Amino acid sequence: MAKYAIGVDYGTLSGRALLVDVQSGEELCSAVLDYPHAVMDETLPCGKKLGVDWALQHPQDYLDVLYTTIPAILAESKINPADVIGIGLDFTACTLLPVKRDGTPLCFMDEYKSEPHAYVKLWKHHAAQAQANKLNEIAESRGEEWLKNYGGKISSEWAIPKIWQVLDEAPDIYDAADTFIEAADWVTWQLCGKENRSACCAGYKEMWNKRTGYPSKDFFKALDERLENVVEEKLGKEISPMGGKAGELTAEMAAKTGLCKGTAVAVGIIDAHVFVPAVGIAEEGKMLAIMGTSTCHMLLGKEEKQVQGMCGVVEDGILPGFFGYEAGQSCVGDHFAWFIDNCVPESYKKAAAEEGMNIHKYLRSKAEKLKAGESGLVALDWWNGNRSCLVDVDLTGMMLGMTLQTKPEEIYRALIEATAYGTRMIIETFREYGVPVHEFYAAGGIAKKDPMTMQIYADIIRMPIRIAGSDQGGALGSAIFGACAAGKENGGYDDVFEAAKKLGKVMDTVYYPNEESAEIYDALFAEYRILHDYFGRGANDVMKRLKNIKKKVAGV
Amino acid sequence: MAKYAIGVDYGTLSGRALLVDVQSGEELCSAVLDYPHAVMDETLPCGKKLGVDWALQHPQDYLDVLYTTIPAILAESKINPADVIGIGLDFTACTLLPVKRDGTPLCFMDEYKSEPHAYVKLWKHHAAQAQANKLNEIAESRGEEWLKNYGGKISSEWAIPKIWQVLDEAPDIYDAADTFIEAADWVTWQLCGKENRSACCAGYKEMWNKRTGYPSKDFFKALDERLENVVEEKLGKEISPMGGKAGELTAEMAAKTGLCKGTAVAVGIIDAHVFVPAVGIAEEGKMLAIMGTSTCHMLLGKEEKQVQGMCGVVEDGILPGFFGYEAGQSCVGDHFAWFIDNCVPESYKKAAAEEGMNIHKYLRSKAEKLKAGESGLVALDWWNGNRSCLVDVDLTGMMLGMTLQTKPEEIYRALIEATAYGTRMIIETFREYGVPVHEFYAAGGIAKKDPMTMQIYADIIRMPIRIAGSDQGGALGSAIFGACAAGKENGGYDDVFEAAKKLGKVMDTVYYPNEESAEIYDALFAEYRILHDYFGRGANDVMKRLKNIKKKVAGV
Repeated sequence: MAKYAIGVDYGTLSGRALLVDVQSGEELCSAVLDYPHAVMDETLPCGKKLGVDWALQHPQDYLDVLYTTIPAILAESKINPADVIGIGLDFTACTLLPVKRDGTPLCFMDEYKSEPHAYVKLWKHHAAQAQANKLNEIAESRGEEWLKNYGGKISSEWAIPKIWQVLDEAPDIYDAADTFIEAADWVTWQLCGKENRSACCAGYKEMWNKRTGYPSKDFFKALDERLENVVEEKLGKEISPMGGKAGELTAEMAAKTGLCKGTAVAVGIIDAHVFVPAVGIAEEGKMLAIMGTSTCHMLLGKEEKQVQGMCGVVEDGILPGFFGYEAGQSCVGDHFAWFIDNCVPESYKKAAAEEGMNIHKYLRSKAEKLKAGESGLVALDWWNGNRSCLVDVDLTGMMLGMTLQTKPEEIYRALIEATAYGTRMIIETFREYGVPVHEFYAAGGIAKKDPMTMQIYADIIRMPIRIAGSDQGGALGSAIFGACAAGKENGGYDDVFEAAKKLGKVMDTVYYPNEESAEIYDALFAEYRILHDYFGRGANDVMKRLKNIKKKVAGV
Repeated sequence: MAKYAIGVDYGTLSGRALLVDVQSGEELCSAVLDYPHAVMDETLPCGKKLGVDWALQHPQDYLDVLYTTIPAILAESKINPADVIGIGLDFTACTLLPVKRDGTPLCFMDEYKSEPHAYVKLWKHHAAQAQANKLNEIAESRGEEWLKNYGGKISSEWAIPKIWQVLDEAPDIYDAADTFIEAADWVTWQLCGKENRSACCAGYKEMWNKRTGYPSKDFFKALDERLENVVEEKLGKEISPMGGKAGELTAEMAAKTGLCKGTAVAVGIIDAHVFVPAVGIAEEGKMLAIMGTSTCHMLLGKEEKQVQGMCGVVEDGILPGFFGYEAGQSCVGDHFAWFIDNCVPESYKKAAAEEGMNIHKYLRSKAEKLKAGESGLVALDWWNGNRSCLVDVDLTGMMLGMTLQTKPEEIYRALIEATAYGTRMIIETFREYGVPVHEFYAAGGIAKKDPMTMQIYADIIRMPIRIAGSDQGGALGSAIFGACAAGKENGGYDDVFEAAKKLGKVMDTVYYPNEESAEIYDALFAEYRILHDYFGRGANDVMKRLKNIKKKVAGV
């Protein structure tokens, strides 16, 4: 009798449930719900206006995903709900909400309905930059050791700046909240009726470390007297490693989803990190890049190394028993989209239309005919700052080598190459700090749809590239964790590594480096590196000075 | 009774005659002839194929300009030909032809009609690069002093490389030629029946110096044994300063043009240099920029200084008694045209069409709303190499500061600013070497038609900019020289400075620097300068290395 697991993937605008056969790995069916409240960045449901850079969500939407998509896939597949042995979920992070001791979100309570700070702060809520800046300054001046685990800088997207913003701007909400919790952990709590914190969220977004715990009371007190006991008072104490079981489905939730009471529920995970088991990675040295508007890199290591300029290293944060490393590039698909929107001439649009191609395809058809080095161009991929290696949002883009003969497809290809050089910088930095990288996997839209780009990446990083096999890698990864939460005795897995090997998927296509191109790209990467260090490490801070002039002129 | 002078301006594709009242400066009428043979860059008239980078002209076209345009303006104006007191002409250079002792071009002779080397080599004939490279190498290794007068490098466009190419590839033509002569001097010869060489052409294009003469026999011998006596055998010995009289119109030429025999004929001049008197410049320290696809800068000085990286300094080469300095930027209008052709998105073209503007105007309407420093961009204007200061054709373009919010009009404006920084570099270099620059004049299409660009230039160079007043500045300048050739006793001028003051024209519009913008541009120019020196003076030769890789990949 076949057994199944359900993975629920919570994105920025919708939630998706996927039903997976836990032996064959077959993906039977899926259902999606667009969040009714989407992203609230202008007003609350009551009409109250929000500030600049705010981005909120409504937690009811997360529950509605469960109430609609799970019944839908059960109905479509006609399987017996008793054969669903486990459920797992992944979520955007840091996506954080204030709740009461019983898990009730403050925004569910009439008295707080019109209070913006009572809602979920979505990962891309950027209104806590002032708090993040202060935090970084104080942490650096105190020489806080844990700071190095995050490449030397905390993002305004993370938990403490967001909580601190609540304290600063709405101290009554801060007081009313019995805890602040990641949405991943809150939904898990709703499923199994038991508070539970994931090592992934706590490690990457709340500055928790398995060995050393959270930063010290002294540090928090240095931020703000009122934050001295923030950990005890407002954060979770017990942190669960990835791959484990959070609890079992409550009767109430069983009734609302159509699943059986007692179904195993996995510890929640971040939506990027969940891709690792989804492509079958279960060992160190295999880097996974999730390539979309930006790129997120995941890597397992056997030792904890403080790698300069990386986003985080968290023990048990991706898979248990490993140190999970995260890195990122803040401008990948966005880079190409910027070019398409701002730099492609009318003549190309016309020619594309005449040949019945979309403009991306048309440009690729021209760019893929170019050889490595043929354009004479090299660019720094910093149109949206640099997230890893340099960790500097104030860096900007650079391109050189243009002549009067330079064509749009050459610029387009140079931008693609620049992002690949950026990836190679990250890989080489990990290696320099003693974290091995042997193999490369890619997931996300670009990985699947853009063979030219993947070949360029293979040539530049000089490793074969394997491509994620599932179109729903996030949900598949969550289903794998669901199957592990169930355990072998229930038809699942005791070992997440075995589950990942069995259920993780890659495509048959592998992009192998072309030696001839790779040799030329070695020379070009050497140029990239010189420019990267010259503009990125202080020899010439022209980019920052220009940004300062720009701000002064704009009066901000 | 009014007196008149005629100026004939020989461009790349046509020749124009202009009739000017020598007292009022009124431009009465003009006539143009497109050269019937235009530029021959693929075949000779007989169908014989030409090599790569060749560009020839037919000298009969130059005569036809005289035979058609002068009668046309005499007819249109209905003036008495006896009231035309002088004629002057300017020409592209180095535009060179081999002729017999009597002035007959070899290509007029039946035996040489099918011989490409018998024709006029137009200024942009670029097939003598190998000879130029060898010449530069030998001159540098010998420490030739005169090389410094040309910024350390001779162009393949100049006379000796072109003559050497003839010797290498068609020694019979070299032998058959009694002399090689600039087209400016050859047409002057045809007008007054007397060989005459202009200091302007000889100084800027044939390496002649009033004080030291031509380079030594030893040097020419070091190039090629056969060139040892090239000066005596193939070049002019007597060189005339600018502003003087070459001779008087012959009876034959009078009959063909409708002018009177004995009309004064001025010494010929290069088409850029002739603009100096046409805007009324008659003293040191006033820089004139002729802004077109590229920009040419003219400056008079009282002393001979060897200014690093400038195109040339020639005593009497622009106006008598002054050292005429020349500098240049190889990519100005071409720069903006490249952007328009390759980088302007369809959406802008559509919006421009909807607002009934051409795309240049539409882009300018957006770019002129930007403030200095607002884009955060800075570029190096080397899309076509660097002609002055660095004198390096292998430098390429660079831009930095781009973000995902960067708009096309910001890039467009940054390219304009880059060319203005390039101009400021030239000005500052002159000043550093002791050649004063107090004022700035601009001529050419951009100067006249693009107020935004001129305002940016004024803000960046921190000097008021005056604009050439005549649309036919070349022909006007030549007419001024014509009036001087006639002399005061014939109703003209004895003093070219008095003539320039009286007949030279600037528009009423003056672009004054805006102090607020100028201060910001000071800061941006400081950044430009750092990048200019970093990429241009050897600290990081990435542009050259990329070009080498490009050449290797292309197999050239």
